Amino acid sequence: MKRVLIIGANGKIGKILSRKLKDEADFEPVAMLRKPEQASFFDDLGVERHVASIEGSVDEIAKIMKETDAVVFTAGSGGNTGHDKTLTVDLDGAVKSMEAARLTDVKRFIMVSALNADDRDLWAASGLEPYYIAKHYADFVLKTTDLDYTILRPGRLLDEPGTGMINITYPEKEDGVSREDVAGVIVQALKQKDSIGKIIAFNQGKTPLEKALSQG
Amino acid sequence: MKRVLIIGANGKIGKILSRKLKDEADFEPVAMLRKPEQASFFDDLGVERHVASIEGSVDEIAKIMKETDAVVFTAGSGGNTGHDKTLTVDLDGAVKSMEAARLTDVKRFIMVSALNADDRDLWAASGLEPYYIAKHYADFVLKTTDLDYTILRPGRLLDEPGTGMINITYPEKEDGVSREDVAGVIVQALKQKDSIGKIIAFNQGKTPLEKALSQG
Repeated sequence: MKRVLIIGANGKIGKILSRKLKDEADFEPVAMLRKPEQASFFDDLGVERHVASIEGSVDEIAKIMKETDAVVFTAGSGGNTGHDKTLTVDLDGAVKSMEAARLTDVKRFIMVSALNADDRDLWAASGLEPYYIAKHYADFVLKTTDLDYTILRPGRLLDEPGTGMINITYPEKEDGVSREDVAGVIVQALKQKDSIGKIIAFNQGKTPLEKALSQG
Repeated sequence: MKRVLIIGANGKIGKILSRKLKDEADFEPVAMLRKPEQASFFDDLGVERHVASIEGSVDEIAKIMKETDAVVFTAGSGGNTGHDKTLTVDLDGAVKSMEAARLTDVKRFIMVSALNADDRDLWAASGLEPYYIAKHYADFVLKTTDLDYTILRPGRLLDEPGTGMINITYPEKEDGVSREDVAGVIVQALKQKDSIGKIIAFNQGKTPLEKALSQG
């Protein structure tokens, strides 16, 4: 049974992922939450949870991470905060999480990034340039580490039910992908070791995600 | 005669540096300006200048850089803009300049960074955390390149006249250093090849900057 620390567990993807991992025989979710008020969802689900902030110290994160076997980073500052949070959460918070992983010797690290995070030419027109910059450099740093990383890059996130089917060949941002399928891809990445060292861009599509990932 | 592109030439350090390099026999400044309105200072000084933005494309920067032999990055979004500019200017603008250098095969790259840019524990209390994050990751990326970089990390910047004397051993942020001496250190770094590959933190002090740098 592998204990998977979900950083950003109270986000939409984080909650779906917590539920999915709870149903998996080989994995056990461990939720990292920013505020004590966020605990009830996880208590009701019977998911272990801890309160810590990626805006705090690396040690604070490491303290929780050290009892786990893998990390999923799905935290995000969101659209309603200032760009200072884009820097402290999406960029430095992500890198602090990597540093905590190095400190605690947790090798497996799954990063939820964003489609086009390496395509600077598309950033300005998206209206989300600061966010893309933060995600791009967080991914850049991750690639320089010796962590067993997988970088997942979904397109526009949808609240629709998952289809279990994705497209990793030519995902266009406009096609989008449900948050449930993103959570499904994370579970598959945890299962499939050959996703290590890969950057997987995807959207909804016609290939079952188990198969799509093994082809990635 | 080496042509030195100053990115952020219209800033306080950039202007002093333009003047200093104009007086050097071995160097010729080339100013990169964001706005045509900024040209008169450089025209009066007889300094070649070009208008381009580091918020534009890498190609736009490369077009100007290709006729030069070294780059000094001293641009900054400053204290009166939003943190989106911290991301687009201080971080991504800096990295675009590195990419332009790679593209044009200009190897020598001097980065004006900030004291404590690697000391995360000091950032939050400084009130400048987003700025430090941007500078930290710009420096991080620079260190992964094969450019002949020197990273200069002055403490608190002062508008006082330069003393020509600095301290690179235990610079405390509070001591500060005049912008004129920062410009002087940049000139020395351009002259002293053994500053390549080094990170030099400094403040005002008691060692002549020529000597301090050769000991760095």
